Amino acid sequence: MRIRCEKDQLLTAVQIVQKAIATKTTLPILTGIYLSAADGKLELQSTDYEVGISMTIPAEIIEPGKAVLSGKFFPEIIRKISGKTIEIFSVLQSSMITIAAEKTEFKILSFPADEFPTIKKFESNNSITVKDDVLKDLIKKTVFACSTDESRPLFTGALTEVFEDEIIMVATNTHRLALKKHSLLGANNALKMIIPGKILNELTKIINFDVPTDVKIVWLKNQVAFSFDNIYIMSRVIEGQFPDYKKVIPIDFTSYCVLDSNILFEAVERVSLLAKDGEYNIIKIKFTPNTIELAGNNPDAGSAIEILDVIPEGEPMEIAFNAKYLLEVLRIAGSGKVKFHLKSALSPVMIKLMDDLEYTYILTPIRTN
Amino acid sequence: MRIRCEKDQLLTAVQIVQKAIATKTTLPILTGIYLSAADGKLELQSTDYEVGISMTIPAEIIEPGKAVLSGKFFPEIIRKISGKTIEIFSVLQSSMITIAAEKTEFKILSFPADEFPTIKKFESNNSITVKDDVLKDLIKKTVFACSTDESRPLFTGALTEVFEDEIIMVATNTHRLALKKHSLLGANNALKMIIPGKILNELTKIINFDVPTDVKIVWLKNQVAFSFDNIYIMSRVIEGQFPDYKKVIPIDFTSYCVLDSNILFEAVERVSLLAKDGEYNIIKIKFTPNTIELAGNNPDAGSAIEILDVIPEGEPMEIAFNAKYLLEVLRIAGSGKVKFHLKSALSPVMIKLMDDLEYTYILTPIRTN
Repeated sequence: MRIRCEKDQLLTAVQIVQKAIATKTTLPILTGIYLSAADGKLELQSTDYEVGISMTIPAEIIEPGKAVLSGKFFPEIIRKISGKTIEIFSVLQSSMITIAAEKTEFKILSFPADEFPTIKKFESNNSITVKDDVLKDLIKKTVFACSTDESRPLFTGALTEVFEDEIIMVATNTHRLALKKHSLLGANNALKMIIPGKILNELTKIINFDVPTDVKIVWLKNQVAFSFDNIYIMSRVIEGQFPDYKKVIPIDFTSYCVLDSNILFEAVERVSLLAKDGEYNIIKIKFTPNTIELAGNNPDAGSAIEILDVIPEGEPMEIAFNAKYLLEVLRIAGSGKVKFHLKSALSPVMIKLMDDLEYTYILTPIRTN
Repeated sequence: MRIRCEKDQLLTAVQIVQKAIATKTTLPILTGIYLSAADGKLELQSTDYEVGISMTIPAEIIEPGKAVLSGKFFPEIIRKISGKTIEIFSVLQSSMITIAAEKTEFKILSFPADEFPTIKKFESNNSITVKDDVLKDLIKKTVFACSTDESRPLFTGALTEVFEDEIIMVATNTHRLALKKHSLLGANNALKMIIPGKILNELTKIINFDVPTDVKIVWLKNQVAFSFDNIYIMSRVIEGQFPDYKKVIPIDFTSYCVLDSNILFEAVERVSLLAKDGEYNIIKIKFTPNTIELAGNNPDAGSAIEILDVIPEGEPMEIAFNAKYLLEVLRIAGSGKVKFHLKSALSPVMIKLMDDLEYTYILTPIRTN
């Protein structure tokens, strides 16, 4: 193998495929990055068997070939090497690969390329195409609500559904649920699968283009692939029956309250300062006829109270929340307004964003004494 | 106690005294910040018995008094609370202290103020006054060379000497030594003490003024205090006999080499990329008649070579260095030039900064096979 390519393009590709390198593995080759050079292109791949990422960049191929380089040192070398053009080559059958630019020359040991489990890209009639910003919005507004508890894998993913000209993403950890809809005209395929939250979060970091880009989503029974630009990302899907989210969404309420999201965010942060040190990060919100009062308490440290000049509509009540779950949806709401839909101290609360009516957040109150 | 003060001033003071709060202690009160309000001033203190910091800010004293507040929660509250003015008060003999601003009210538990070991500020004829930028320069160029090995306390501090119109700071971990001199006209006192590197590093962070400020250094046999602005910092000194640094500085050389510090820094970073994973972070520099060649090697990963177009003066030789020790002095040199003074592959190397001739760095080569 002997190729020449631009440093900036190679660095981008390395940083993207790096995300799928196996960290906990007994198979050393999975800690490497696979390079394949042919037909004016250099393809980089990595996989941990759960997820696989491939990216292709233009390259001058002097001699086609393959190599698997250390996923630790290769990215560091490309980051630090100076020069516009990088040359990568091996001599005869040596396992030493040379990476050269300007006056620096690195020689690094490589893994046997034939042993790398390359990604099998699949085609299928089951596919849809989504705009990059739509996909990012779906992910950003829901995936944070996933569970991180690996012992309940179902909730570590987001249910992704396509039907009747709509795409829906739903995530829950059973204490709160986030649901986002988007219209998706002309999607002829019905899709329903649970995609791991981790790969969806990585996707939002990788999908980062200056121009609108289409993302093609293709799926088989237990796999999903996203392709866009010169990038291909494949992931297993989570098997199991996602709970019927429609049953979780309450529909009758007695009280409502519209609040500026930023103001509420800062107030919740303050009153939960002491409480977050305790076992549960509980704050209480008292909706009274002409204010709302936030309170946090930690028997070992102290307490905090803050009053907001807001006039709720409906019955007065006091509800206890996990402050973290409230802060997370307020962060999504940003500088907009949020509307609380309340029924009683122990009924799930529905929070809607005033500037995105296709978004719904359900939060279960905490029972306190 | 009942006081009012400006949030910004209180926040600055809290962030400064916070640095001396005890982290590992069996005495809970040392994890607190001591407040003392009287005569239009609020004084904050903290100490871990090794170091003590006091800072005073103006305050409206409605009722004088004292309190010791949680070193964990009090700074967080002051950071997050909103409003220009903060009111702090206790009611009768209650151990609850209220911190209020705008519509937020915190109540936090306090420690019994009488039990706090307040700092005993001392006066002494042994004192000198140094400009803040001179003191910061002395510290910045030497203290990084201290050892962090607590089992050899002598080398965790910097020797500070004043005599014959000069102030000198020296630090070493026995593998390298950094020495910086500054003229200090009219210093009538001879000073010689080993000041802990940790407090000197904190000092450079605290001394951060827009206008030139004088720092008064006062010392007793086993204590040193720095006072400036409305801040007083006290520290124990390290006892023991610092090695005679004058004997360490070599004086005869056979070869010299002037290099651009930034270029060398980046080259050393690159060639040490693979080597730094090994047990020693060794790079070799070969001074040849018309270039210098840097090489790093890691038997488990690979190797790197970089050639710099520099013409050394004198005998060719190859010297092995700990890359970290070389990078640290090059970081100090910044965008300037450095001059290597060499004698043989195993003789200590002297590195001088071309734009600060009062600075000397001695680096012992590594013996390799």
